Amino acid sequence: MQQVNLGMIGGGTVGSGVFHAWQKNGDLLAARLGIKISFRKIAVKAIDEPRAYPIAPELLTTQWQEVVNDPEIQIVIELVGGTGIAKTMVLGALAQGKTVVTANKALLSAHGPELFAAAAKSGVNLYYEASVCGGIPIIKALREGLVANQFPAIYGIVNGTCNYILSRMKFEGADFATVLAEAQKQGYAETPPDLDIDGHDAAHKTGILGSLAHGFWVNHHQIHTEGIREVSKIDMEFAAKLGYTIKLLGIVKQAAVKNPGRKTLVQVSVYPALIPSAHVLANVNQVFNAVFVRGDIVGDTLFYGRGAGKDATASAVLSDVADAAQDLKHGNQMRVPPFVPTAQAGKVVPLDEVISQYYVRFSVVDKPGVLAKIAAIFAAANIGISSVFQPEGDEGASVPLILMIHDAPNAAMRKALARIAKLPAVKAKPVMFRVENLE
Amino acid sequence: MQQVNLGMIGGGTVGSGVFHAWQKNGDLLAARLGIKISFRKIAVKAIDEPRAYPIAPELLTTQWQEVVNDPEIQIVIELVGGTGIAKTMVLGALAQGKTVVTANKALLSAHGPELFAAAAKSGVNLYYEASVCGGIPIIKALREGLVANQFPAIYGIVNGTCNYILSRMKFEGADFATVLAEAQKQGYAETPPDLDIDGHDAAHKTGILGSLAHGFWVNHHQIHTEGIREVSKIDMEFAAKLGYTIKLLGIVKQAAVKNPGRKTLVQVSVYPALIPSAHVLANVNQVFNAVFVRGDIVGDTLFYGRGAGKDATASAVLSDVADAAQDLKHGNQMRVPPFVPTAQAGKVVPLDEVISQYYVRFSVVDKPGVLAKIAAIFAAANIGISSVFQPEGDEGASVPLILMIHDAPNAAMRKALARIAKLPAVKAKPVMFRVENLE
Repeated sequence: MQQVNLGMIGGGTVGSGVFHAWQKNGDLLAARLGIKISFRKIAVKAIDEPRAYPIAPELLTTQWQEVVNDPEIQIVIELVGGTGIAKTMVLGALAQGKTVVTANKALLSAHGPELFAAAAKSGVNLYYEASVCGGIPIIKALREGLVANQFPAIYGIVNGTCNYILSRMKFEGADFATVLAEAQKQGYAETPPDLDIDGHDAAHKTGILGSLAHGFWVNHHQIHTEGIREVSKIDMEFAAKLGYTIKLLGIVKQAAVKNPGRKTLVQVSVYPALIPSAHVLANVNQVFNAVFVRGDIVGDTLFYGRGAGKDATASAVLSDVADAAQDLKHGNQMRVPPFVPTAQAGKVVPLDEVISQYYVRFSVVDKPGVLAKIAAIFAAANIGISSVFQPEGDEGASVPLILMIHDAPNAAMRKALARIAKLPAVKAKPVMFRVENLE
Repeated sequence: MQQVNLGMIGGGTVGSGVFHAWQKNGDLLAARLGIKISFRKIAVKAIDEPRAYPIAPELLTTQWQEVVNDPEIQIVIELVGGTGIAKTMVLGALAQGKTVVTANKALLSAHGPELFAAAAKSGVNLYYEASVCGGIPIIKALREGLVANQFPAIYGIVNGTCNYILSRMKFEGADFATVLAEAQKQGYAETPPDLDIDGHDAAHKTGILGSLAHGFWVNHHQIHTEGIREVSKIDMEFAAKLGYTIKLLGIVKQAAVKNPGRKTLVQVSVYPALIPSAHVLANVNQVFNAVFVRGDIVGDTLFYGRGAGKDATASAVLSDVADAAQDLKHGNQMRVPPFVPTAQAGKVVPLDEVISQYYVRFSVVDKPGVLAKIAAIFAAANIGISSVFQPEGDEGASVPLILMIHDAPNAAMRKALARIAKLPAVKAKPVMFRVENLE
């Protein structure tokens, strides 16, 4: 039986998870692939650091160069994370002609094209299934399973921490700060939580999905990113009454813009949005992730699973290892290249030009004439109001006023809201979320 | 650029869908794969039969042998269906050294091992993504994306016709016969509807999923199969009140049995079951399919999409064509073989030995003592009742009595129900559905 040797850099939570999964199912993998996969060396921060699962001590080293430079190692798994030393490690392994498997979304997001070029130069592959949505084989789905499709729309719940918080807010009527604090205690949210809560982690993943789907590399700074700090209990409740659920979405869609040009214009954004509660995507709860992919041929599909955690991530890492091992067995170079620019490459459209629908909540003084003033500003901006709700409620000096807004460009909406915010009767910064009907 | 030539047998609904998808996205496929894929010949029943999409007439022939025997054709797509002439065609193409792509679940279900052996003998591959759940890339997910996992449980909504009928019954409170008749009018159900309604189509697909997941071939006759004819409006309503939704499930799970032996015992069944309404699988509605896959490493995953239809199926067929074309480009033989028997192969356990939970509805005479008699029979069989509901209701001479039953072997349950059915106070055949809590 063919033999393939692995090296791994990183032996913490995910690294020990990968080792454990290989210990458990290595024989099964060998039977399925006809390839014996063995670990040869694992570089860690400290030999005796605490781990989720034990790693055979004779495999451990604290020198990552020993992994990258070992001529017997054919595949290097990088689980260090971040964009610093991890980049040196990955480039080093590729330069040595080793296939690299990484779970590092931040690194790909920051340096994808450079890494892919290095892989191509060395004629080896760079696999990254684990970088987006942990155990969900979404990279393989986009690159292989749905390869015959164009992708008019992708909506992903790609951050488990945010989905956990929003799910608890929905089902328990709890407010954001309370749930966040509890999530931090339970280990579902980090301290500080900014990378998750402010949407940056989701943006890393959304950029990778967008790049794969549309054949041009989406730069991180092109992704309009909003987090979930502004989602309040009251918004969750009103959304539910209107038949919607609020989810943080990574969105990649062929943009509805006013003056489309020849190139495909693609909206790539991360923001909390109202989606129909009956939709399967709205029923993805707790820490689960899901990516709703619309293909022009296949129609609507959805891929669901755990987006993080040592075991789910290990499943994705080992599936990449299996593909890489098959490449070695069959002498394939770049059978499925990590990223393929396509001729019809498009570009990211600024969110200001994108046309969206909106839910807006104002805190207003409870007296006649306020709605008329707000409506006049929207009318002047040529923005149509589709419905108005003034629920019973007592916020002391002010009351909530909720408007659902027809299709309007984001720039026009932004400017109108800025004007409305200055009205004396408007007592707080307007809260605005987009509505995605997934149609 | 490398060139690959396709032949296709079958130019009806799905065949013309494949041709249309290729016309639309062939250039994109070429860009993504670095391979130009061309159609060379398409065998059809009649040149001028009506088609969903037109096919270039110069490609058409009525002689399937012209496709199988054309030395320029490297990949043959079989879309004829059935287990008769289609088998001859597939074996013929394999014997000629051509890779075969098929959507034919009935053929695989009946003759899988023979076809795989023929493929192995010729050193070519046999792809069948389109045979299970149309556009959902579930075969690729099990074989590649989740390759590092054992599969303790798989629950699939794999028949769109049944899911459409059950969805309408749930949301409209309609009864089975009415919805079936309408579905037949609208083309969502065939006439006669038996293949779908009685679970046979689901059994074909479930057998293929079970075989892939557990590494031994599941024969069609080993699959306990029940359809949805017995699901009534009243059951749908009571299930909802108890927090459940009734779905037809294809089930492949490591069995809960009383005396497990050394081999993995696998339950492979198709039946309508109550599943928790809040679960993502319960929210898969209308004609959509979904497969809920539990991996021992990855945890819970779900794959959702259209399970049938010319376009969704075309997406799957072309993804197989892409894989086959990559094999040809890279000179791979059987990179991912169609089916790999594994050492730890298990066996299918008879349903009688499987332990399930149950929902049972009796039609009983409305007088004291009936429940006591029923409970006594269950007690004698060592079957525990977890709850009893006697809803208000007027069925004339009888009233409904609903019991939820704890874990009990199917044989014991079957025998107890047969005894209960003979009680004079029991006025109709008891209705029994299993409860799958997906835990």
